[in-house]
Amino acid sequence: MTIYDIAKMSGVSIATVSRVLNGSDRVSEKTRKRVHAVIEEVGYTPNIFAQGLGLNTMHTIGILVPTIDDTYMANAVAYLQWFLSQHNYDCLLSCSGFDAEGKKAQTEMLLSKHIDALIYVGSTYAGNGKDDSVTDYIREAAKQVPVFIINGNVKGDNIFASVCDDEKAVYTAAMSLLERGRKNLYFLSDSHSYSANEKKKGFLCALREKKISNGKNRIIYVGNRIHSVRDQLLSIEDFDCDGIIAVNDIIAAGAVKYAVAKKLSIPDDIEIIGYNNSVVAVTSIPEITSVDNHTEEICRDTVNRIIHILSHDDVKVERKVMVSCELIQRDTTITE
Amino acid sequence: MTIYDIAKMSGVSIATVSRVLNGSDRVSEKTRKRVHAVIEEVGYTPNIFAQGLGLNTMHTIGILVPTIDDTYMANAVAYLQWFLSQHNYDCLLSCSGFDAEGKKAQTEMLLSKHIDALIYVGSTYAGNGKDDSVTDYIREAAKQVPVFIINGNVKGDNIFASVCDDEKAVYTAAMSLLERGRKNLYFLSDSHSYSANEKKKGFLCALREKKISNGKNRIIYVGNRIHSVRDQLLSIEDFDCDGIIAVNDIIAAGAVKYAVAKKLSIPDDIEIIGYNNSVVAVTSIPEITSVDNHTEEICRDTVNRIIHILSHDDVKVERKVMVSCELIQRDTTITE
Repeated sequence: MTIYDIAKMSGVSIATVSRVLNGSDRVSEKTRKRVHAVIEEVGYTPNIFAQGLGLNTMHTIGILVPTIDDTYMANAVAYLQWFLSQHNYDCLLSCSGFDAEGKKAQTEMLLSKHIDALIYVGSTYAGNGKDDSVTDYIREAAKQVPVFIINGNVKGDNIFASVCDDEKAVYTAAMSLLERGRKNLYFLSDSHSYSANEKKKGFLCALREKKISNGKNRIIYVGNRIHSVRDQLLSIEDFDCDGIIAVNDIIAAGAVKYAVAKKLSIPDDIEIIGYNNSVVAVTSIPEITSVDNHTEEICRDTVNRIIHILSHDDVKVERKVMVSCELIQRDTTITE
Repeated sequence: MTIYDIAKMSGVSIATVSRVLNGSDRVSEKTRKRVHAVIEEVGYTPNIFAQGLGLNTMHTIGILVPTIDDTYMANAVAYLQWFLSQHNYDCLLSCSGFDAEGKKAQTEMLLSKHIDALIYVGSTYAGNGKDDSVTDYIREAAKQVPVFIINGNVKGDNIFASVCDDEKAVYTAAMSLLERGRKNLYFLSDSHSYSANEKKKGFLCALREKKISNGKNRIIYVGNRIHSVRDQLLSIEDFDCDGIIAVNDIIAAGAVKYAVAKKLSIPDDIEIIGYNNSVVAVTSIPEITSVDNHTEEICRDTVNRIIHILSHDDVKVERKVMVSCELIQRDTTITE
């Protein structure tokens, strides 16, 4: 019997049960009574002995990803696991999907497993930048354990962020294409996540700087599959394009397929830049120039900050750390 | 305080603590005394009330993979998670690495998290086919929860296997190349896992059937990185090869890079077949013919069997299920 069971049986969140147990006054009298009734019914006793001795640490860190079937996520998880293992911490992973309900449910599930901290991997957890309430579940979690977000930023106590400077990376990439005389740049995206939006900002900023108007018309939303990207670009009538920046390497690989199908010469007729510097960029022929967002560095830094917090040492832990990206030159751009 | 803490404090495995609690006679008197001393010291009570009511199910399935940074594993985990969620089961994942120690430790960690069943993904868990003792940790786990192995087979009570017919798939692929008159086939592998061995068997069997001697000389061990495969093949003096079957698509993509570097015409001068039918096969230009090992089907079937077992219905659950593979024709083989 765990706090999770009590929450389920009472029809409230674990955070609420936790508040009841801790005597917080942020719980209604009605809820408090219901939870206490369940606790008495099942004979649950919170293990105060273990808590007092600090024995309730399981040396386990929870990691939440929207989906593991994505090269960036899988890579980040592998790095986090590796660095945590160096400090004798185990990892418990769960996949939440992209919906609010799943994110909340899987957060509570992981919290019920005696984790010492929780890491969210991916900017989908950081909301859409408009409605703060969509990240309330993260602030709730942060009342129980330190929370880290990789590639996203959420405001609140006990919440830490590690982000890469996607805006600057895309700005720099777009500027390099524009300065080589490219006239018809397009930005290919598949989402409105925090990170996709940062990249879009960088793209639009470069266009503005070069006095190219109607930048928003140069953003094309595509699916995240190689052949569907190719086919969508092929279907655009009179598509005049000499430069593409994609939010990930899969989409960039689709753009390469488009250029090959159109018998365009890469990089002379068209230059293509991907993102994530993944195995897909290296598999493609020609190999794809891609932004490396330094996943390894972000993960190492995140783990170091977690360890500082959990070991209660005196090192000051930054709330938000920004890591810069790097353009890896390959065969889809002109080397100067 | 959980059974995991008791195990740690007693210096024994959770399986041993479990045996002590269940009064099994497979524990030495000395161990029993030590465990009981720890239990008394910390005031641990196994929650018999919850067990009796069946309330101790958390509707959570543990999943263990060697590494998540691998397309096949990540895919399988995504499918398992999806099918389990259809039955209202959550997943807890952990990565064990490939070493015996990590496999055992992460198994015990997951078992301590109140899981209802445990799924091992990958043939690395099935041992090397020589020494049975290397899979003892799986038989230990199966004393606590039903255990499933995807793409591997381990003997023991409460252990279930789902395997794909890798031997037949490679045999069929090799036979098709030989029957088109290919003379110099090579098999590229990066491991000695259960599944790599099955594929090798299929390759050697086809060569034998076509009276090609010294088949073992036609097996090349390579690294699992595209460029290192290419460079290794380029470094072989007088490498005379008109057909390649690779144990995965990454290695096949490396073979494509080799053929391109050698200015060989694909598929006329050389045919190449990959394995896993992953995004890498589709990214490559030319796109790679690849064996689809029906991961989705295997995962769906595994989840169905788990649900039958956990719901204690009367459906007979097969101990071992074999799923056949399918060759997906693309541009690196000749279409007949």
